[in-house]
Amino acid sequence: MNSFGKIFRTTIFGESHGKSVGINIDGCPPGIDFSEEDMSLDISRRKSGGKGTTPRREADKPNIISGVFNGKTTGAPITIVFDNQNIRSKDYSFVKDIPRPGHADFTAEKKYKGFQDFRGGGHFSGRLTLAIVAAGALAKKIISPMTPVAEILEVGGYKNIDEGIEYAVKNKDSIGGIVECKVKNMIIGLGEPFFDSVESYIAHLAFSIPAIKGIEFGSGFESAKMFGSQVNDVFIDNIGTTKTNNSGGINGGITNGNNLIFRVVVKPTSSITKSQDTYNFTSEQMDELKVKGRHDLCIALRVPPVLEAISAIALADLQLLKKAFK
Amino acid sequence: MNSFGKIFRTTIFGESHGKSVGINIDGCPPGIDFSEEDMSLDISRRKSGGKGTTPRREADKPNIISGVFNGKTTGAPITIVFDNQNIRSKDYSFVKDIPRPGHADFTAEKKYKGFQDFRGGGHFSGRLTLAIVAAGALAKKIISPMTPVAEILEVGGYKNIDEGIEYAVKNKDSIGGIVECKVKNMIIGLGEPFFDSVESYIAHLAFSIPAIKGIEFGSGFESAKMFGSQVNDVFIDNIGTTKTNNSGGINGGITNGNNLIFRVVVKPTSSITKSQDTYNFTSEQMDELKVKGRHDLCIALRVPPVLEAISAIALADLQLLKKAFK
Amino acid sequence: MNSFGKIFRTTIFGESHGKSVGINIDGCPPGIDFSEEDMSLDISRRKSGGKGTTPRREADKPNIISGVFNGKTTGAPITIVFDNQNIRSKDYSFVKDIPRPGHADFTAEKKYKGFQDFRGGGHFSGRLTLAIVAAGALAKKIISPMTPVAEILEVGGYKNIDEGIEYAVKNKDSIGGIVECKVKNMIIGLGEPFFDSVESYIAHLAFSIPAIKGIEFGSGFESAKMFGSQVNDVFIDNIGTTKTNNSGGINGGITNGNNLIFRVVVKPTSSITKSQDTYNFTSEQMDELKVKGRHDLCIALRVPPVLEAISAIALADLQLLKKAFK
Amino acid sequence: MNSFGKIFRTTIFGESHGKSVGINIDGCPPGIDFSEEDMSLDISRRKSGGKGTTPRREADKPNIISGVFNGKTTGAPITIVFDNQNIRSKDYSFVKDIPRPGHADFTAEKKYKGFQDFRGGGHFSGRLTLAIVAAGALAKKIISPMTPVAEILEVGGYKNIDEGIEYAVKNKDSIGGIVECKVKNMIIGLGEPFFDSVESYIAHLAFSIPAIKGIEFGSGFESAKMFGSQVNDVFIDNIGTTKTNNSGGINGGITNGNNLIFRVVVKPTSSITKSQDTYNFTSEQMDELKVKGRHDLCIALRVPPVLEAISAIALADLQLLKKAFK
Repeated sequence: MNSFGKIFRTTIFGESHGKSVGINIDGCPPGIDFSEEDMSLDISRRKSGGKGTTPRREADKPNIISGVFNGKTTGAPITIVFDNQNIRSKDYSFVKDIPRPGHADFTAEKKYKGFQDFRGGGHFSGRLTLAIVAAGALAKKIISPMTPVAEILEVGGYKNIDEGIEYAVKNKDSIGGIVECKVKNMIIGLGEPFFDSVESYIAHLAFSIPAIKGIEFGSGFESAKMFGSQVNDVFIDNIGTTKTNNSGGINGGITNGNNLIFRVVVKPTSSITKSQDTYNFTSEQMDELKVKGRHDLCIALRVPPVLEAISAIALADLQLLKKAFK
Repeated sequence: MNSFGKIFRTTIFGESHGKSVGINIDGCPPGIDFSEEDMSLDISRRKSGGKGTTPRREADKPNIISGVFNGKTTGAPITIVFDNQNIRSKDYSFVKDIPRPGHADFTAEKKYKGFQDFRGGGHFSGRLTLAIVAAGALAKKIISPMTPVAEILEVGGYKNIDEGIEYAVKNKDSIGGIVECKVKNMIIGLGEPFFDSVESYIAHLAFSIPAIKGIEFGSGFESAKMFGSQVNDVFIDNIGTTKTNNSGGINGGITNGNNLIFRVVVKPTSSITKSQDTYNFTSEQMDELKVKGRHDLCIALRVPPVLEAISAIALADLQLLKKAFK
Repeated sequence: MNSFGKIFRTTIFGESHGKSVGINIDGCPPGIDFSEEDMSLDISRRKSGGKGTTPRREADKPNIISGVFNGKTTGAPITIVFDNQNIRSKDYSFVKDIPRPGHADFTAEKKYKGFQDFRGGGHFSGRLTLAIVAAGALAKKIISPMTPVAEILEVGGYKNIDEGIEYAVKNKDSIGGIVECKVKNMIIGLGEPFFDSVESYIAHLAFSIPAIKGIEFGSGFESAKMFGSQVNDVFIDNIGTTKTNNSGGINGGITNGNNLIFRVVVKPTSSITKSQDTYNFTSEQMDELKVKGRHDLCIALRVPPVLEAISAIALADLQLLKKAFK
Repeated sequence: MNSFGKIFRTTIFGESHGKSVGINIDGCPPGIDFSEEDMSLDISRRKSGGKGTTPRREADKPNIISGVFNGKTTGAPITIVFDNQNIRSKDYSFVKDIPRPGHADFTAEKKYKGFQDFRGGGHFSGRLTLAIVAAGALAKKIISPMTPVAEILEVGGYKNIDEGIEYAVKNKDSIGGIVECKVKNMIIGLGEPFFDSVESYIAHLAFSIPAIKGIEFGSGFESAKMFGSQVNDVFIDNIGTTKTNNSGGINGGITNGNNLIFRVVVKPTSSITKSQDTYNFTSEQMDELKVKGRHDLCIALRVPPVLEAISAIALADLQLLKKAFK
């Protein structure tokens, strides 16, 4: 349930306000240079700090506790742990009475019968994407020269991202956004027709990122209004380059060598300071909820390195699978 | 690669113009009434025949060759086979020279080194969704009273579907569409936070349906433009009913008991009769391609029962997983 | 539950007295010559017919219904089906009253709540090893030049097999045996330290063969009485040849290039014509059971090709895994 | 490769002389009391200290870094880490020149291309069984009242264990042994006919314990010499009690409610102080090897708690699977 991948297999663990978050990576080839430093750039990109992000500050210092020897992967499973340090969790018990709308408070309570670590979102927290980014740093090395690059396309409907954030700040409300990921230097032949298409793989991982509620490849939802003659990407040379890229680089679930392109929608953070009228499960009547705590105004801002990470993780596994059949 | 599910596990097989298509279902509880007749309604709904669908006619008669005894599932794996009958495959060798734009011809050739069954799309064919529908008929029984109902929302941008088809017919071109699936009577607590969210599970399966290039849950891509105060679904009673359903019935990757709602975009069929200028890999220059054969004008029309099937398959597995923790 | 393997993945199905038994093989590389004829030798070796085997005669004719095109594997999943023909099943309802000692009648009844196909052992039948042999024929091609060869070492304690059978015939009782499998031309580096050692893999599959109750590698149980200086296989050249082979060709769960050697014990067939005093679950008192039907006197005689098949299946998967890391 | 289980899924990591060894457990039900103290008894039983065990002393202090909150499992994945402290690893580089006979030195070098952590056996070390014991402590709680109890049956052929150890000490050599595990209060119906028989599951895990080279269930290898009328366990009451237990409590791969019984053979530790003539891969000629370092004389002595642990882990997964079908 907390693992993904057939060969390059990641298992995520940890809680927002527990001792740690971390990830285990099994099935990594031996001999890859890998150290804590290799993760620092993406970890730093994911960090909060800019306008619209949470004031919680964490050192986010990775500790590789297995699988690396003399600076190289050994072929044994790699475990990366991040200690949680900046924790303020005394005031989360309210979520049992008034589960926050849009949050996992209610579903976690029901699913785990009240035993979940409810502090700061617990195992559901966006903080776990830190572990995904860590695994992604390793995966990026495996898939090189394939290179995923993600960027924010719009925030709150604004293509100018600063405007979008201003709009949210002005309205004292959280705001959604759209992030695109493009992978260059693609290898041909990754993915499977059923059920492990590239789209299936990437979507599976993308939807494990909290707040993501939609994904589209290539021309995506636009293609609903188009003709086949418009959407079909005709080939123009003997290595399979296509004139257009409406397919997002995927035909029949398999990469065709052109850029892999997809976009995700990130819904506005559910934790908002605005008052919300919602049900109190203890008093058994409607109540007013004002969420305190430290939260992101626009979580989409922190998604790009995570999206790159899940792309790299998905492609690393598919690439190893492909090699198995060589 | 051709399997999905942890407990209720389906393995799909077959080719469009080979002996058969079929599916194996492992992990089905014993004692469920199941016979060939139980599949006939959904098989019939998926069948071609209406305006905009292929003129290929197949009996689509399922044959249960294992796992059912005295009209009930036994607990042993169930295999359902459909013989292919109406096959005309003499004229598919051209796809090796001129892979059809938008098709899997090129990627299959590269991935399988020329050994793929290239006739009629082979293992990539939409015909394999027949096997998915068969497994879905069984899955629907398992998840009852949860009930997935899918419908076409628009074709070629037209909410009136007939208009959309007319538009395509008039332009002698294939056309895309949008299909929505709603699951009623949802159980609370299905799905996992990482990596097996309900969205992950359903998206994984949805993208194994040929031609689907995007999926969104609840308010989906619309939420990119919205505030948290608009998107958050406030609870209004002690069973978790929400006032709105922007989340599509899922919080933190787990079902909240409200209707599960998602939409997919189905791109226009890539097989079109219009002439296309595309690369000829044998002559090594651009060439003109006119695709003959029998094809759907709007494959979206046949997607609703398939979408219900994958929803049922995903939910059946998640429901059995949930029972394991009771 | 009915599948095995990470890349080369087999899914078994069928019942002794149902429509068919068969197997699905996913993750087979494309381009391998494979036809029904390739299975015939091993199927024939597994067949009954000799002294000590059941008088039930089946055509055992394999039908490849997917995944092979123009005589070669395509890379898509391969399904092989055997129709059951020589079925006499009217008289099996007694097993519900008096489950046969040593059989799965009792456990199947409990596990499947009475819905199991109880005729002729149903899904538990040794007949399903026919499907394993079929998959093994394909796996043998994949692992070539690695070559598994199995032979009967003893029957009823007799090294002379004919004597052992005579002993059983004279006593009108079924009899056990020991079968050894040796794989030559081994590749170095197959298997994983945890949890997928070569021993784990092979034992996992071996214990899915009905009647097998023990397995040992190399010097096996003998090594309990030995010193390290006796058991350790010293290396004698630069390709890793060892002077002795007490390890059975496996160090640390990984093949070392020397012959892979293991032995299994096959218990005597539980279906015996001798009267047995056992519990009648309907009358709720002890009863006398005389099993009619057609059964093997010494099922060990039919195990060698099955043991080769499971060795080949295990090694095929491990070999593909190894290639993934090249 | 380092994971096992369908629902209750363990992933093992770490190296003998690296930072840590540990285990991740996914799929654990919420609400189970679990703390570091719950592991202490089994950890202590596994510890070295007695005659015949290594002089290396480790604190073996478990640290639960995820998945437990307020002393109870949360339903999220549990990670248990043991820091390595008493490490002396300067002198292990010789294993690259002269791989130790019986060890994984040679196979690891080949498989991991020289990148493996070769110090103290690295990821192959018996030290990793500490992590298995930790997971077993949790699994034992899940399967309760089923209770695995393992004991040493013989050492070096001696039923009196002290005599066996004396024999080894006197000969300055390591020695093998046999360990039996019995599980009482068994639930009926655990396990699957193909491929996940109880025997398959337990054997799979047992062979991941270093030095185990054979396993047998019930009367095991003895049954090769027996008649069916002797081996068949007749039922004597309406809950399925059998008069004898030659099947080891398993019929058709499924538990029948009688005690589950199996035995494993543990080969003598391959690290011996006696001189061995073996190949030097650097000088490319035969050489003399005397292994220094701290090693167990009879590793079998430390196996009982590990065997209980793997039994509990196997049964925990099968029990959760069974519940899924209720």
